[in-house]
Amino acid sequence: MKVRDRGIHIGLLPTGEKNCITDVEGVLVGHVTLDYPLDESGKYACTGVTAILPHGGNLFQQKVTAASCILNGFGKTTGLVQVNELGVIESPIMLTNTFGVPAVTQGTLQYMLDKNEGIGDTTGTINIVVGECNDSHLNSIRECSVQPKHAMEAIQKASKSKASEGAVGAGKGMVCFGYKGGIGSSSRIVSAEGTEVTYTIGCMVLSNFGEEYELLAERYGLKGNEEKSTITPTDGSIIIVLATDAPLSSRQLLRVIKRCGIGLGRIGSHFSHGSGDIVIGFTTAHNIPHSTNKLIETRPQLREDHPMMNRLFTATAEVTEEAILNSLSQAETTVGRDGNVVNAYLFNFNQ
Amino acid sequence: MKVRDRGIHIGLLPTGEKNCITDVEGVLVGHVTLDYPLDESGKYACTGVTAILPHGGNLFQQKVTAASCILNGFGKTTGLVQVNELGVIESPIMLTNTFGVPAVTQGTLQYMLDKNEGIGDTTGTINIVVGECNDSHLNSIRECSVQPKHAMEAIQKASKSKASEGAVGAGKGMVCFGYKGGIGSSSRIVSAEGTEVTYTIGCMVLSNFGEEYELLAERYGLKGNEEKSTITPTDGSIIIVLATDAPLSSRQLLRVIKRCGIGLGRIGSHFSHGSGDIVIGFTTAHNIPHSTNKLIETRPQLREDHPMMNRLFTATAEVTEEAILNSLSQAETTVGRDGNVVNAYLFNFNQ
Amino acid sequence: MKVRDRGIHIGLLPTGEKNCITDVEGVLVGHVTLDYPLDESGKYACTGVTAILPHGGNLFQQKVTAASCILNGFGKTTGLVQVNELGVIESPIMLTNTFGVPAVTQGTLQYMLDKNEGIGDTTGTINIVVGECNDSHLNSIRECSVQPKHAMEAIQKASKSKASEGAVGAGKGMVCFGYKGGIGSSSRIVSAEGTEVTYTIGCMVLSNFGEEYELLAERYGLKGNEEKSTITPTDGSIIIVLATDAPLSSRQLLRVIKRCGIGLGRIGSHFSHGSGDIVIGFTTAHNIPHSTNKLIETRPQLREDHPMMNRLFTATAEVTEEAILNSLSQAETTVGRDGNVVNAYLFNFNQ
Amino acid sequence: MKVRDRGIHIGLLPTGEKNCITDVEGVLVGHVTLDYPLDESGKYACTGVTAILPHGGNLFQQKVTAASCILNGFGKTTGLVQVNELGVIESPIMLTNTFGVPAVTQGTLQYMLDKNEGIGDTTGTINIVVGECNDSHLNSIRECSVQPKHAMEAIQKASKSKASEGAVGAGKGMVCFGYKGGIGSSSRIVSAEGTEVTYTIGCMVLSNFGEEYELLAERYGLKGNEEKSTITPTDGSIIIVLATDAPLSSRQLLRVIKRCGIGLGRIGSHFSHGSGDIVIGFTTAHNIPHSTNKLIETRPQLREDHPMMNRLFTATAEVTEEAILNSLSQAETTVGRDGNVVNAYLFNFNQ
Repeated sequence: MKVRDRGIHIGLLPTGEKNCITDVEGVLVGHVTLDYPLDESGKYACTGVTAILPHGGNLFQQKVTAASCILNGFGKTTGLVQVNELGVIESPIMLTNTFGVPAVTQGTLQYMLDKNEGIGDTTGTINIVVGECNDSHLNSIRECSVQPKHAMEAIQKASKSKASEGAVGAGKGMVCFGYKGGIGSSSRIVSAEGTEVTYTIGCMVLSNFGEEYELLAERYGLKGNEEKSTITPTDGSIIIVLATDAPLSSRQLLRVIKRCGIGLGRIGSHFSHGSGDIVIGFTTAHNIPHSTNKLIETRPQLREDHPMMNRLFTATAEVTEEAILNSLSQAETTVGRDGNVVNAYLFNFNQ
Repeated sequence: MKVRDRGIHIGLLPTGEKNCITDVEGVLVGHVTLDYPLDESGKYACTGVTAILPHGGNLFQQKVTAASCILNGFGKTTGLVQVNELGVIESPIMLTNTFGVPAVTQGTLQYMLDKNEGIGDTTGTINIVVGECNDSHLNSIRECSVQPKHAMEAIQKASKSKASEGAVGAGKGMVCFGYKGGIGSSSRIVSAEGTEVTYTIGCMVLSNFGEEYELLAERYGLKGNEEKSTITPTDGSIIIVLATDAPLSSRQLLRVIKRCGIGLGRIGSHFSHGSGDIVIGFTTAHNIPHSTNKLIETRPQLREDHPMMNRLFTATAEVTEEAILNSLSQAETTVGRDGNVVNAYLFNFNQ
Repeated sequence: MKVRDRGIHIGLLPTGEKNCITDVEGVLVGHVTLDYPLDESGKYACTGVTAILPHGGNLFQQKVTAASCILNGFGKTTGLVQVNELGVIESPIMLTNTFGVPAVTQGTLQYMLDKNEGIGDTTGTINIVVGECNDSHLNSIRECSVQPKHAMEAIQKASKSKASEGAVGAGKGMVCFGYKGGIGSSSRIVSAEGTEVTYTIGCMVLSNFGEEYELLAERYGLKGNEEKSTITPTDGSIIIVLATDAPLSSRQLLRVIKRCGIGLGRIGSHFSHGSGDIVIGFTTAHNIPHSTNKLIETRPQLREDHPMMNRLFTATAEVTEEAILNSLSQAETTVGRDGNVVNAYLFNFNQ
Repeated sequence: MKVRDRGIHIGLLPTGEKNCITDVEGVLVGHVTLDYPLDESGKYACTGVTAILPHGGNLFQQKVTAASCILNGFGKTTGLVQVNELGVIESPIMLTNTFGVPAVTQGTLQYMLDKNEGIGDTTGTINIVVGECNDSHLNSIRECSVQPKHAMEAIQKASKSKASEGAVGAGKGMVCFGYKGGIGSSSRIVSAEGTEVTYTIGCMVLSNFGEEYELLAERYGLKGNEEKSTITPTDGSIIIVLATDAPLSSRQLLRVIKRCGIGLGRIGSHFSHGSGDIVIGFTTAHNIPHSTNKLIETRPQLREDHPMMNRLFTATAEVTEEAILNSLSQAETTVGRDGNVVNAYLFNFNQ
């Protein structure tokens, strides 16, 4: 159940139809979940891969404008150097566990090589973006259960429908505020005075951060579970993927995604020392062809002094907060390695 | 009245004795307030200068470790290029209105030249740090009423006592969420398991941001005033000065002050497009002499994987939020240029 | 004399007609030079102001795309926070001595207020950009001889003709590699295979850096003067202003101006610890109106995988190196405070 | 042969004993080179792995202070997000081809997991740093010949002796200015007036950038080969690893490694659009234990206004330039995929 169905409404702006990142036209999401014992001594695969595709076409041939923002950099996300330099993403955005990054990079690379014969032959190479959190409370992360094929499978399964949330895909083994976290999503429709135009902002998080005391439960009229998880959460991490169809330059998009930190802070996070709190954003407003003979391109972009820009900022804070709450709300109690149990957050209201 | 006296408590950590930035040992604050008509046509000086001194000695000779963080860069704060390169501050930190920056820089420069005969003669120059917000709703800012002497006077008046808050000093003409804002301050005492050591975090803000709808009043059980101000707030700005006595490198201090954005976001800000949301931080843990013959210095710094670091992050979010609330709580209704009235926020509680 | 007239040619690309930043269509330069004794004890005003105008219209109403780059941040340049956030410049770019920054900011502000009644009244404030170097070897910098009127005068005198170079304007008191430096300029015309289009890159420097041993004189077939200056140069600074008419986004422009460091390095600089080595760049390709009712703008920008981008990089390195050499080549021996003499570099060729 | 043996001397400072990065006490280098046909159609493995170890102990348990600098970010180097946040490196620094990054990350991860049972179990995860260039002119890069075992082997082979240079390890398939590039190294001994202390600066590059026209051959009295390579070089990349034993904070180290761009520029590079020009630096001056109960550490660091800092800057520019020249000077003519031939640069002197 999403938190809205529990009566918790974040902010003032209306959600998209699915209240999901896939409300942004063209965006697809696919999950592969691993959930099985690795031996009889307690080793367990409780992990997975999530693929977020800015569009369903060939992302290398038709890139999207992108930006990234490091709220706290205790993380191993890969691909951001080039995103920051060029302001584009040219691959699916992949999420997995920390030690799954090499396998997921390899699998995504292989997928893109298969689709594009010229890469590394007649044209340059390709930049793969992979975000991660450490799911070692539930997953035997040292066993490196995630394989390249899982990345390829997640991409192939990606669809435009309402994405599964909670303990699925890369979210399978994640822990948030001491409860079961993982994948969460939300969206907003943004309009502004003086124009009929609307834009959509969508967010998907991989939540794996926070101690219970940090959660500002009283803000939502909530109190914690009586039954606690059997593990003690540590600093964790969160990967936030923000999608929009608003026409923004990469500089403008960076301004927008910095506001994800507002939503993360409102729910209670302090961007802990040991947390990789990282935002990756893209806009589907226009594609950027890999090659062309043109000298000049004309790109539409928002007048950022138009009230719409502040509306996008507001929406970004709102969807981030709600996506994190949805990751808690949708996740079920999960048993992982060594019999560790992480409980679902019960959303007990005061009174 | 501070918001604690109204029954609003932010966070869990204890405040310092004065709940003020001057709880950080050595820190001094001084205000000069300008409040008079400039002519009979409605032009009015409703502005001022605030000086924050990391210590009462010669700041050029004994510099402090510092850092700055741009949450949103629509601002004219000066001096940050060198703060970022060298990680030190060597002058008082001055606050004023946007067009007062040149005069305040000039006055502070003159003050420091008078104290240090060698500057610009036998040794190098000096870097002055001045933050600003646009107080043109109440102040006839084009008249440039702030003069160099006002900066010198604010420095000379600086004291270790509990600082005045609200519509004083640089805060005289500021507007926050459509109500009267300005200067606010708060502090926290931080301790951590496994050590007897405590540190102090202090914050002073110059608040001048936000539209009324942004204020998350319900979080505090509040509702807005019935009587509105006669002006419509625009994007504004906020300058946040964070002081601590914890031994931090400039890299660590930057990590700490980034968390001011959490407190700012929690109260409702979206870091608006037209807002200069800027944080300046320093630690008084040790002084750095201007000149010495030493090749090597040893500097104490926190093990940032110690739980103390996360406590500092928590405290930073808390003091920022509370300092902003105090700026609202302490400010009185103010009449400025063209008869514009900005009302004090009445802190009406729901029921 | 420019270094080309001495037989020194930098790089392969052709210069513009004037080999000056004013080869970029629309750009204007104006100087005010101060050169007089302040008393009979040796105090001397040997300094000035230089104004670089991206175009001759109202810069606040018609802003230009801009970027800045800090090669080494031991400097007091003001206005860069907002340039970095918004990617625009909305004022003349002013150069002066370190302690002249407040006066020049004030004078430029006053000039812009006079031209724009709405600033600080019916619209927001304005961001002034002022770069500086420390000319205290020749100028009695503590006396703050530069006044606001000098900034206004430099703007008013700005013209599109070939700019004066050497010991003029802000360059009057500057020292480079132990010799007389100051203002220098150069330009390049850039073309690329597969298109008839050409762009112009222009550079103006305020050179005030380096010890004599750093100058890679042998690269140019040169040896030092026999007669040395009476002062020992210290770390100094350099401000580099790069102008172009190529259509670039602010992200792209930042990529271009980073290459100024290549030219600075080739002449021998190590970006000394105490040097403020700062680049400010703008493109005149299109203006950005201050206000409009539009939601969307379309802006032309270069396909940066087109060979033209690398040509712009090459040109940027070349003009920076040549502009610095021109600052040496055009400057005459100068006597300043306390009878200090800084000799012109004689450009003695080996053999 | 090193370029010094050809009579080319870069700069003024003395080299270390081996003129190699391993002159920095404790640093080890290991190479694994792949050189064999993959089939009979022309597919060829012409690539490898290079490992640079800051010290021979357990790098996870005893981390080193580190920094990174992106001169141009068209690259896929991994691990820098955390290096930038925390200022430490906790793994070997690995170099390979672009599509070898996942395998090398996986192999290095496995190596470190084997050495540290607690990683991902009783303590957190580990951050692996891998730099890359695109060697697809000579290597059939799409075949992903580099395997995790090659990374482990390169680490195990690492030694303190003078490292092999040229077409070895990760440098096997690299191309520089149209000639054979790859691995190059150089070092400097730095001293300063007023102290007996000396420090060592060492550099190792993986050179793979530049078109022939860019090489400023005349600076070295050189002219190009008559016989050209059979391939046309494209934008390429360079990874620069800078090591020192000077006691520097990560902020100071970042200042030092930014000067690598000076050396790169002096040889002729314009930091091309399609080039990943990335610097990774570390100091061995002190180790930082992974875990401790301490609240406070005292770390020695250089007074950066001491002349030693500028000497470190000079040395950094010099070693970078000389290491690149050594990569050309030591590399032999290499035949790779599809019969492509890249010639050794012959170092033909004019006259």
